Amino acid sequence: METMSENRAFGGVQGVYNHLSQTTRCEMTFGLFLPEEARDGPVPLLWYLSGLTCTHENAMVKAGAQAWAAEQGIAVVFPDTSPRGEKVADDDAYDLGKGAGFYLNATQKPWAPHYQMWDYIAEDLPSLLQERFPLDMTRQSITGHSMGGHGALTLAMSLPGRYRSVSAFAPITNPTATDWGRKQFSAYLGNDESTWAAHDSSLLMRERGFDGPILVDTGTDDQFIDLLRPEALAAAAAERRQQATLRLQKGYDHSYFFVSTFMEDHVAFHAEALYAD
Amino acid sequence: METMSENRAFGGVQGVYNHLSQTTRCEMTFGLFLPEEARDGPVPLLWYLSGLTCTHENAMVKAGAQAWAAEQGIAVVFPDTSPRGEKVADDDAYDLGKGAGFYLNATQKPWAPHYQMWDYIAEDLPSLLQERFPLDMTRQSITGHSMGGHGALTLAMSLPGRYRSVSAFAPITNPTATDWGRKQFSAYLGNDESTWAAHDSSLLMRERGFDGPILVDTGTDDQFIDLLRPEALAAAAAERRQQATLRLQKGYDHSYFFVSTFMEDHVAFHAEALYAD
Repeated sequence: METMSENRAFGGVQGVYNHLSQTTRCEMTFGLFLPEEARDGPVPLLWYLSGLTCTHENAMVKAGAQAWAAEQGIAVVFPDTSPRGEKVADDDAYDLGKGAGFYLNATQKPWAPHYQMWDYIAEDLPSLLQERFPLDMTRQSITGHSMGGHGALTLAMSLPGRYRSVSAFAPITNPTATDWGRKQFSAYLGNDESTWAAHDSSLLMRERGFDGPILVDTGTDDQFIDLLRPEALAAAAAERRQQATLRLQKGYDHSYFFVSTFMEDHVAFHAEALYAD
Repeated sequence: METMSENRAFGGVQGVYNHLSQTTRCEMTFGLFLPEEARDGPVPLLWYLSGLTCTHENAMVKAGAQAWAAEQGIAVVFPDTSPRGEKVADDDAYDLGKGAGFYLNATQKPWAPHYQMWDYIAEDLPSLLQERFPLDMTRQSITGHSMGGHGALTLAMSLPGRYRSVSAFAPITNPTATDWGRKQFSAYLGNDESTWAAHDSSLLMRERGFDGPILVDTGTDDQFIDLLRPEALAAAAAERRQQATLRLQKGYDHSYFFVSTFMEDHVAFHAEALYAD
């Protein structure tokens, strides 16, 4: 693991690190904010999964998470959204290939050799973080934006016991039913739609739910709201009687201005779960 | 004036606008955050001047000012750092020409026709803002980062009565003595160094001072600290017995992680002055 940069921020350190991933088989970059408390021992960890076109950097510099994480004494990790490098397959479209890993393990050519983002987030990166940083891996929560909200919700429901709470900003909640999902699942997973269900949080909600609190914010003026389908997750959560707070925020859109506005709420929400014994 | 974008943020609106400036004689873009209170009437205005290489956008998306401005009911304007466009003179160096206007009126070729950033910030943009937005122009304060901190300090001391308070993050405080100043003043103002003094906040501090509170933060690990010379401003302020809080922040560097860390302090500092009657 190589340190790309470390900047003092809010009493802690915002670092950027690079490592060779065994799952994506390429160099991966991630950001990690460690609060001041990490000097004295392990701290809880919040995962922030980013959306389409983003790298590890966008949320790290634009989402305003560090201020609130510092206040709560929580670390935040900002992984990349896909494998990277010249040997990695790509597509001209912004929503397929690099920057659009969709947090799944691809089984189809030409994607399968590197597009293993599920295993990267669920196994590879946690192992590295546990080994190299003062993190209490028994206290993890997860959030994300748009495609990253999809990743947060599907990982949380599929790995019971891993995350104490899950939240999302404008998540893609029903990708098997929209163009932000069907196109990518066809490419990455193939045409057998039965393999897609494990990556649709509205379907997972009906089948499994989540053993903990859920918080989801979506803007009423989100320009992509027809692709996000917050109503699908809302219906599934209601049918399941899932503990959840699903909010529609008047006038907000899909941007980081929306994300940063509600970041304080989300970090406080996770802190409550992370510090419950 | 043309609206480029408007995003709901922290209960208010983060807008980006374009207009033809009479002083820089080109199209200029600026960001303006209006808090929720602006719907009901004029609100105080905080100027944020950005540093070298920045546009109106960097601080708008990275400095985290909106959260605290919303809390205080204050508008924040984010001007660009130079004239723009194909007909505007430029230089290959990052610290001269576009992105490096240094908040002065150039008198030398080829810069003079467009590089009139002092008048743009002092006259042109305020007129437009007063005309088009619900702003209480009797309640203005000013801050900035690096080159923008230089701009904030020199404007505040040169326009008595205009700004109620001034602050700066890692400002260039003694440009007549360093390579972040001598090079640019030679180019923009010519070799007669007597014309430079009006743009050196340490010299202005000795000569004029500021009729109000000053807050300046600089990181002890700032990689450019030899070019900033916080000691020059500190010495001048002490000799003048100027009301001022000059802080050196342990371990912080020159980045937006530093700026965002102390933004809450700076906005609260300005709010106290802006809301004093």
